[in-house]
Amino acid sequence: MPLTPQDLTTSSHEAVPILGAMGIRVLEAGHGRALAELPREPNVNHFGALYAGSLFSVVEMLGGAIVRATFDLDDELAGFVPLVKSMEIHFRRPALGTVWARAELALEDLERIPRQALERGKADYTLTAEIVDAEETVLVTTTGLYQLRRF
Amino acid sequence: MPLTPQDLTTSSHEAVPILGAMGIRVLEAGHGRALAELPREPNVNHFGALYAGSLFSVVEMLGGAIVRATFDLDDELAGFVPLVKSMEIHFRRPALGTVWARAELALEDLERIPRQALERGKADYTLTAEIVDAEETVLVTTTGLYQLRRF
Repeated sequence: MPLTPQDLTTSSHEAVPILGAMGIRVLEAGHGRALAELPREPNVNHFGALYAGSLFSVVEMLGGAIVRATFDLDDELAGFVPLVKSMEIHFRRPALGTVWARAELALEDLERIPRQALERGKADYTLTAEIVDAEETVLVTTTGLYQLRRF
Repeated sequence: MPLTPQDLTTSSHEAVPILGAMGIRVLEAGHGRALAELPREPNVNHFGALYAGSLFSVVEMLGGAIVRATFDLDDELAGFVPLVKSMEIHFRRPALGTVWARAELALEDLERIPRQALERGKADYTLTAEIVDAEETVLVTTTGLYQLRRF
């Protein structure tokens, strides 16, 4: 079965201890969409803004969370893993408190990704994401290229 | 006085606790160049590869380290801070052990950045960097746009 937000939070911290150290949590995931939270502590730097590496991480992990919440990597797609190939990230305004990162797959990718992965052993997908603050101000925008492939 | 690699390691961990948690150390810095180390632990994920967010971070922090090691942000440029504005990062091969990130400023930037910062209150600079393993294989390449500006 695809994973729940709680499952994804736990498994992401087990898979990548640094994500646990940052306190990143998946709040919603499924049907090609995901939302994750990056808390102010311990990610704030001594200028009072959230560190760029933590902002990158909360976006980057959405690319895996969406796939794990939308497709069945324990059954139909067992043995496949999502990997990031490249990312372009723009830091538009400083992030001063807890922030939220959200991303969604294109609708046509919901059908294409599992089909192509099974046919070819891999499927690329592009994810645009943004990070917003509590006032919904867009602070960071990204475009990431990922690949679901046999491990 | 510009800072030494040891000073830069200590001050980066004080300024950004997550960099300390990743165990990132500045090994060489000055004259428009910097080299930093990202250790395998605690940055390895459960597939045995270094986490993308840690790879991003060791590159990103070079943009500040180079400026702090090359220019005098305690005297002539007191009150100025380096900020990352955007980054394009390509993950070309998996990083399986401890890796090293290195970057250098263009020679003409050594004169331009402090002059323009003092004249205009800010100066943009572009930094290309790469991450290599112990065999000097290039694993990650990046282009980052930074700004030195009055805080």
